Amino acid sequence: MKLLRYGPAGQERPGLLDASGTLRDLSAMIPDLTPATLTPATLDRLRALSPQDLPAVTVQPRLGPCVGQVGKFVCIGLNYRHHADETGAAYPEEPILFMKATSAIIGPNDDVLLPPGSTKSDWEVELGVVIGRLAKRVSEADALSHIAGYCVVNDLSEREYQLERGGTWDKGKGCDTFGPIGPWLVTTDDVPDPQALGLWLDVDGVRRQTGHTGDMIFSVAQIVSYVSRFMSLQPGDIISTGTPHGVALGMTPPPYLRPGQVMHLGIDGLGEQRQTCRADI
Amino acid sequence: MKLLRYGPAGQERPGLLDASGTLRDLSAMIPDLTPATLTPATLDRLRALSPQDLPAVTVQPRLGPCVGQVGKFVCIGLNYRHHADETGAAYPEEPILFMKATSAIIGPNDDVLLPPGSTKSDWEVELGVVIGRLAKRVSEADALSHIAGYCVVNDLSEREYQLERGGTWDKGKGCDTFGPIGPWLVTTDDVPDPQALGLWLDVDGVRRQTGHTGDMIFSVAQIVSYVSRFMSLQPGDIISTGTPHGVALGMTPPPYLRPGQVMHLGIDGLGEQRQTCRADI
Repeated sequence: MKLLRYGPAGQERPGLLDASGTLRDLSAMIPDLTPATLTPATLDRLRALSPQDLPAVTVQPRLGPCVGQVGKFVCIGLNYRHHADETGAAYPEEPILFMKATSAIIGPNDDVLLPPGSTKSDWEVELGVVIGRLAKRVSEADALSHIAGYCVVNDLSEREYQLERGGTWDKGKGCDTFGPIGPWLVTTDDVPDPQALGLWLDVDGVRRQTGHTGDMIFSVAQIVSYVSRFMSLQPGDIISTGTPHGVALGMTPPPYLRPGQVMHLGIDGLGEQRQTCRADI
Repeated sequence: MKLLRYGPAGQERPGLLDASGTLRDLSAMIPDLTPATLTPATLDRLRALSPQDLPAVTVQPRLGPCVGQVGKFVCIGLNYRHHADETGAAYPEEPILFMKATSAIIGPNDDVLLPPGSTKSDWEVELGVVIGRLAKRVSEADALSHIAGYCVVNDLSEREYQLERGGTWDKGKGCDTFGPIGPWLVTTDDVPDPQALGLWLDVDGVRRQTGHTGDMIFSVAQIVSYVSRFMSLQPGDIISTGTPHGVALGMTPPPYLRPGQVMHLGIDGLGEQRQTCRADI
């Protein structure tokens, strides 16, 4: 099941994409896709619907973030072997964890705003995990049962803020618009193996990242179990599981993002995002 | 004005403490104290009320977190000169920023749960800033006008998770119950100078921290301005502004928290908190 939110920013309505690619409105079924509705019971109820009975949305609306009112946006750093190699970092012994401000979340195709004076904004295509059931110190064996679904995340990063301004990485990860999520929340029944997904990212038509979730140092199950030891995970929380190699930071000279450039990214079965960079004012 | 939330966890109602110390119910005026209601207009409306016309709450209810539905919980590290001295760290050139999971937030007198196997849980009394108006790249001169009020924060930290498990500090800051806030949100009209507040913390009756916000390396105005350059701040967001010296980490041997111990902490004019430590299961 491909769930989504559509409409103007802040006024999104819930919807689903049916097997033929038609957007169907879910407003009569649930008020929104949020922590309150991302429960196993609600998802089962939506799964039981006949999509063709739902109103079709015939215009091409803006897509919003595929989850609203996200409580936590937890990220994993250096989780792909090739990406650790390109940054010159050793493979971490335990998952590296940092937080992205939830105010950074935008729709999958909204503009990305480069902060004034920023010269080191960078892309990162990532597999996002959306929690569907409270996870508090869950085992690896049980971890996947706490996931509602998956989505594409672009974990945008300002490398100067992240690495050259002191303190933790959080400073360069939470800029407004630095967290596009979507287009869809694809429920777990449609993602039989989260470690078998190709992911890619282009900038202005040039392929920059090509990766595979099989290259992860820590698997999705390991990550959910691990994070749940340090903080409980609630429905609607998102964990972004790290990026494969091919970020600007790893290149010489680094081709950091400039206003007008377009990022195009996707993950097998989870859809695509496309953002235009603009200078923030 | 001293605003608060009272009642069972998850079902808190808004209230205020009047000049005589009587708790008055605000349910008829606002649905809750949340980002939606922490606006200058709503606060002005509450200020115009005559507290004696509001229903008195005659029982002694549990106090909840003084703000509900917090969007971001941003923290500043090493911001007191004496605390930087005790940890052996140089004074930071720019504010050190990290994030606390919002799921860590609890009421001011709720139990603090020590994670299983944890042996290095530590206290940190801090001045919390509650945002009342969108702050995006605001100047230092304008920063204080974006604040709704102040509260006491206990920025609990598991030092092994924070410092010995790789990655950023966030791993040791966001454990469930590691973010008591309150008892009150004291609006800015009752806090003429946020740099003129004494703060203190006892463990089992032994004074551990005695500090003064005048010892901050970066002032509240500087912090709000600085953070707002990296991420916009929304009403209800909390910034915890760092802790004075006297944490367990700085002592030899460190007297980390054990089940059964009681923390008692407060800030001039902002009230007091009291938490009992329990082993989490």
